[in-house]
Amino acid sequence: MSLVVVGSVAYDAVQTPHGRVDRMLGGAGTYIALAARYFTKVAVVAIVGEDFAQEDVELLASRNIDLEGLERVPGKTFFWSGVYSEDMNDRTTLQTDLNVFADFNPKLPETYRSHPYLVLGNIQPALQRSVREQMNGVRLVGGDTMNYWIKDYRDELLATIREWDFLLINDSEARMLSGKNHLGEAAKTILDMGPNTLVIKRGEYGAMLFRRDSYFVVPGYLLETVFDPTGAGDCFAGGFIGYLAERGCDLKSGKVDKHDLSRAVIYGSVMGSFCCEKFGVDRFRTLTRDEIDARFREFRDFTEF
Amino acid sequence: MSLVVVGSVAYDAVQTPHGRVDRMLGGAGTYIALAARYFTKVAVVAIVGEDFAQEDVELLASRNIDLEGLERVPGKTFFWSGVYSEDMNDRTTLQTDLNVFADFNPKLPETYRSHPYLVLGNIQPALQRSVREQMNGVRLVGGDTMNYWIKDYRDELLATIREWDFLLINDSEARMLSGKNHLGEAAKTILDMGPNTLVIKRGEYGAMLFRRDSYFVVPGYLLETVFDPTGAGDCFAGGFIGYLAERGCDLKSGKVDKHDLSRAVIYGSVMGSFCCEKFGVDRFRTLTRDEIDARFREFRDFTEF
Repeated sequence: MSLVVVGSVAYDAVQTPHGRVDRMLGGAGTYIALAARYFTKVAVVAIVGEDFAQEDVELLASRNIDLEGLERVPGKTFFWSGVYSEDMNDRTTLQTDLNVFADFNPKLPETYRSHPYLVLGNIQPALQRSVREQMNGVRLVGGDTMNYWIKDYRDELLATIREWDFLLINDSEARMLSGKNHLGEAAKTILDMGPNTLVIKRGEYGAMLFRRDSYFVVPGYLLETVFDPTGAGDCFAGGFIGYLAERGCDLKSGKVDKHDLSRAVIYGSVMGSFCCEKFGVDRFRTLTRDEIDARFREFRDFTEF
Repeated sequence: MSLVVVGSVAYDAVQTPHGRVDRMLGGAGTYIALAARYFTKVAVVAIVGEDFAQEDVELLASRNIDLEGLERVPGKTFFWSGVYSEDMNDRTTLQTDLNVFADFNPKLPETYRSHPYLVLGNIQPALQRSVREQMNGVRLVGGDTMNYWIKDYRDELLATIREWDFLLINDSEARMLSGKNHLGEAAKTILDMGPNTLVIKRGEYGAMLFRRDSYFVVPGYLLETVFDPTGAGDCFAGGFIGYLAERGCDLKSGKVDKHDLSRAVIYGSVMGSFCCEKFGVDRFRTLTRDEIDARFREFRDFTEF
């Protein structure tokens, strides 16, 4: 079932212990869309500048991602650059040029409004809310946020996630949002804020999913080499929501199959792990659904007892 | 099948954010024995001083743990004291008085020598080796070590673990022993040193088991409150080897059932988690096998997909 993806489409410059790339396609919206597209139809809402390359449009178009909502305006595309530490566990932002993204005010094309699934990448909470309000009868909505919005836009953020089915953040964001150090307590607090489902990403240590009556934990995939972790969290989101959309899931209480949820976490983990294998979106140029399903089975092999 | 446990039997003083105890039964040998006893017959080899309390002897005896190898000599029992950080992830040793443990030279009672299972707590590698040599036709042997032996007694340690089936250490020790940062590469290097099985403990993040042809990963149990983590790693070892002994497992290639191994890791995790629920060995005063099996099933519930 069709999924609307809202988020940045950007250019990144990244340096890791394995090399550097000065300009490559990136952005949460790009990663989420590419990852989710292995599972479901995807329609993107984003903004780019005049410098956005035709080959990058073509990559997305070649996946039959609906680009009617990809606005192109005068100016430059959002640009981010960062450098990773030797062990890849830390990264330092060197430059953030919002460019045309500074005036992003997402407007949903008419044809998007009745799509049943909506995922909101990490942008201003008020914009996330306005997108939600443009949808008619959305079945399942959720998304990401970050420390900046948690700290300085708390009220807006709370008003936004109150209407979400799922929130997908990392462990330090969960602690910051809840004010609780223990992840179980943090989860309880956040579930009281509105979402019926909380997914906590823990990087190399895997991920956890919490609902009021159950939780699920998966360890991280042991990659041979982490080449570039940029976008891994967004690819997790894409795999997670993509699989739920493929299955036609509803997360409202009583309407959800517990195993659909845990498998969505596994597919999220799978997509995040593939993302790290090459720079930027490169792994998705060749990745197949068969490879994805094979890694899903690998997860089963190394966790089953 | 009977298990010989060699390790310290000691007194600890511990301070955690939940309180402090100035003197309580502890030591790797104690924790391993108490945890393993839920699964199999246990015989202890250790040394204590004249101050070792009758009530502590009685606790072990009440579990029908064979104490013929518990030597009592003039002097004081090994004493350790430490304090945990607010988040429990670090601890600082305040005092280590080896006392009678300084001259520990384990001699196995005749009746122990033909037991099929042997687990060696963290002591001098040469002593670990001498115990191994006193056994006749042991089926399965393994144990623990620590940074001190890895750094300053490397040759002795390598000669010792060469004859072990399993080595059970934490992630930083695995990195130090192998010289590799990536845990998969670290595991390969360590499996080349002799053991056919490597278990890496990762604290709150769970545990991993590596063999040449497979690996298994389990996330940590989400405890409501970590009261006192002292001994959790040793209880993991006790649950792990205890279950293997209960099942009569052999770890030599071709003789092992993969699921026995992964379930042993789960039982190790279960015992480690219970250990943290009270100060010192207190949780084991009331813990039942039914509670252990219930938590084993909980692990299945929150990891299955």
